[in-house]
Amino acid sequence: MRPAPALRPSSVSRVLCARRVASFHRYVSYQAPRSVAELLQWRPGEKADDVVVNGFVRSVRSMKAHRFVTLGDGSSLAPLQALVQADHAEGLAVGAAVRLTGSWVSSPGAAQSHELHTPEYLRTLPHLRPRTPVNAVLLRLRSEAIASLTQFFAARSFTQTHPPIITSSDCEGAGEVFTISPANDAPAQDGSQDSFFRSRKYLTVSTQLHLEALAQAVGNVWTLSPVFRAERSDTSRHLSEFYMLEAEMSFVDDLGPVMDLAEDMLRSLSTNLIGTATVQDLLFRSRHSGSDLLPAEDVKRRWEGLMQKDWPRMTYSDAVTLLQQKSDMFTHKPTWGAGLQSEHEKYLAEYVGGGEKPVFITNYPRDIKAFYMRETHTAGPDTPGPTVDCFDLLVPEFCEIAGGSMRVHQLAPLLDAMKRQGFAKPPSEGDPSEVSGGGLDWYVDLRRWGCPPHGGFGLGFDRLLSYLAGVQTVRDIVSFPRWYGRCDC
Amino acid sequence: MRPAPALRPSSVSRVLCARRVASFHRYVSYQAPRSVAELLQWRPGEKADDVVVNGFVRSVRSMKAHRFVTLGDGSSLAPLQALVQADHAEGLAVGAAVRLTGSWVSSPGAAQSHELHTPEYLRTLPHLRPRTPVNAVLLRLRSEAIASLTQFFAARSFTQTHPPIITSSDCEGAGEVFTISPANDAPAQDGSQDSFFRSRKYLTVSTQLHLEALAQAVGNVWTLSPVFRAERSDTSRHLSEFYMLEAEMSFVDDLGPVMDLAEDMLRSLSTNLIGTATVQDLLFRSRHSGSDLLPAEDVKRRWEGLMQKDWPRMTYSDAVTLLQQKSDMFTHKPTWGAGLQSEHEKYLAEYVGGGEKPVFITNYPRDIKAFYMRETHTAGPDTPGPTVDCFDLLVPEFCEIAGGSMRVHQLAPLLDAMKRQGFAKPPSEGDPSEVSGGGLDWYVDLRRWGCPPHGGFGLGFDRLLSYLAGVQTVRDIVSFPRWYGRCDC
Repeated sequence: MRPAPALRPSSVSRVLCARRVASFHRYVSYQAPRSVAELLQWRPGEKADDVVVNGFVRSVRSMKAHRFVTLGDGSSLAPLQALVQADHAEGLAVGAAVRLTGSWVSSPGAAQSHELHTPEYLRTLPHLRPRTPVNAVLLRLRSEAIASLTQFFAARSFTQTHPPIITSSDCEGAGEVFTISPANDAPAQDGSQDSFFRSRKYLTVSTQLHLEALAQAVGNVWTLSPVFRAERSDTSRHLSEFYMLEAEMSFVDDLGPVMDLAEDMLRSLSTNLIGTATVQDLLFRSRHSGSDLLPAEDVKRRWEGLMQKDWPRMTYSDAVTLLQQKSDMFTHKPTWGAGLQSEHEKYLAEYVGGGEKPVFITNYPRDIKAFYMRETHTAGPDTPGPTVDCFDLLVPEFCEIAGGSMRVHQLAPLLDAMKRQGFAKPPSEGDPSEVSGGGLDWYVDLRRWGCPPHGGFGLGFDRLLSYLAGVQTVRDIVSFPRWYGRCDC
Repeated sequence: MRPAPALRPSSVSRVLCARRVASFHRYVSYQAPRSVAELLQWRPGEKADDVVVNGFVRSVRSMKAHRFVTLGDGSSLAPLQALVQADHAEGLAVGAAVRLTGSWVSSPGAAQSHELHTPEYLRTLPHLRPRTPVNAVLLRLRSEAIASLTQFFAARSFTQTHPPIITSSDCEGAGEVFTISPANDAPAQDGSQDSFFRSRKYLTVSTQLHLEALAQAVGNVWTLSPVFRAERSDTSRHLSEFYMLEAEMSFVDDLGPVMDLAEDMLRSLSTNLIGTATVQDLLFRSRHSGSDLLPAEDVKRRWEGLMQKDWPRMTYSDAVTLLQQKSDMFTHKPTWGAGLQSEHEKYLAEYVGGGEKPVFITNYPRDIKAFYMRETHTAGPDTPGPTVDCFDLLVPEFCEIAGGSMRVHQLAPLLDAMKRQGFAKPPSEGDPSEVSGGGLDWYVDLRRWGCPPHGGFGLGFDRLLSYLAGVQTVRDIVSFPRWYGRCDC
């Protein structure tokens, strides 16, 4: 049980004196309703006699001849308060969908409503969870973020695309994949054949490879697409299904413009949304409005960090040197050639960005990164081994929020990289029908018929929203989360 | 082989005299490039000396000391023409990714380029297909349509949502479904169990049921989401994976506002996009620019139809009466209680809408529609049987493009409808753990805790784009189409 948000001054001073309650077990005629958010923004002087408002009852408190009802419709964190005559309020219970008609007038007192459920309990009721006030704010945040990003990319002539969800390849990305088959087929005996698509197909883990093909058509592309991982991890950071924002730019020669794009995008997003009622609901809610939410002042600091200019960019090699100077702070010894541990990333996000700005760490060792990343040609002679033109974007506390790279755009180096990383049979060799290296012959083919230098990045959209909302568990930012062992509704 | 689009006057009179050609088998430095579309819009008087442009070679024609090169970058249907000194053009072949630097000057002659491939052939090369000029226009149309729709719904305070792709239910919709499992699992022996999610899961065929839950949170919601059908149909109208636009409104009492929304949305979309360079490319391309495309004047008529006001609305019963008067025109006899055949829909779209406007056909017989549709209470006594508050939206030639309904929002009628339609065990009866009726207990539950009247519609987004582009086969509007037997790349 946790206390509800404090009411805003305007709503404390106002109450709807309902003359009529239509609850929806009967058919009612249609009148133009107001949203709760709209009413709460009226100034104290304003009043009206024939206000109609729709919503769900959040609480009912009995008084002598009246019921004191709070009502939410998802448009605001704060509820509407309504004074309903007892005989109109018969049977009015929490959760009921009602339409109230009445006068919107001043009220002398303040009141409190309550949220009755813990986030863990609500996660077991995903179909009802969004009805709670905080979850409605999270839905609106997602919607406004999508609209803002759509505008950002349209203004830069990036083409929004719909890369495929069902793919032929199972070899990109580190995660486990899901395979699909028609529900009315008998399961294949050897697990390798499927009568519907003639060979085994998978749910995409990243749209990047297809985006590269589309970027050759129209230059710069992006997508906000569901992706899937069959990881058997039950941590607060893992989902089996989530949305990924991916962008790809053609005819860029180095990583600079790719990092610029990621930085501009996040700065534009935070700058555009900070003034909205939705984000104000997040930033100025009561300190006590949810134990699972980061305190509002910490959330505010995250938004302000993204709005800053000139995010630091540091190479992996310099980062390792820096970490080695602080070696005694860490459980894992920082070593060139190994991945950065979470404790290392936390330190870098705190130290390099001053605990405020996000930080780009670039040029990781080639051998711990994906085959499609382009090798660095400008690395200094002191670099201990080959690196690739890539970056991870780290934000304070949360760490990695996006990653990107230049892609290998020439045929021979790509085939070399695939061999090195153990693709059994690079598609260019031998009979194409024998290709078993993950169905990537078409991807290699893109390098055969004219391929410009290109690069891009991917960002876990649900993780970004968690970060922006101060939601501690990514499962709580998704309405119907799916993870290992759980897919309700 | 089909002739390419006629060049626009401005491009016919201009040519880029390239002083430098950088093709991307080597690393080149970065300069701010212009798009081809931008250059083609310069007025004849304008010129410039240091123009940089990126793109792919569409054709190379040898002249005495020069090569005449056409270049496309996806930003326009018409190509850029470039005159390149022979010694700069060494090895320059069709498809090469190049950067040209030179002067943009007047040219006395006109020229023609050619598209060399049929759509059927291109469909076998999905990774290269979008590079062709018409396919790049289709990608831009999709992108601009998404942006316009996002703006349309944001302006009306509809919340854009991401309903789940992996679902527990296999019983909604008429199509066959795909099931999923981790690729590294042994296939389950009985086909009914899955160790990852504890029970069998499916790819969604429609997000509607989840949208209904979300509409209870924030009032009005919409989504543009991939959906999946495992239909073994190999027709030009079927895809196994496609995008669906779905919208759901809470607190609406009848079908009128739902139809208004669908109509307003399509009118807004067509009105907003008609003036864009992309749609102008579609509407004013040469009559000969593709045998698989509807002639430009017919495409124009489609756009103009969607921009009209006051689309006719006719009940199914009236439609059947009308069709019966023309009974001898049809192969299938129009009968109350049966579905409308394609020939019937074509006649209605032609007759009722005058061959111009889209037409809503409403209130179909209950027994041929889905269980979640609300029964009509206002049907006249002459109606031969029970009907539901639903509509199909028909457009000329193409027929059904969207469908919607009021949903059953009360518990008892919903359980009745599920029993009537053969759901083995309505979830409300008996032990919930025994529910086997398709995992819809949560959906029924939405009616238990306060449920307002609500309704919505769904629209096949890829089919809409096919209609707007005059593309005859829905497979050609999708970059990487998947259908029965085909999932390349």
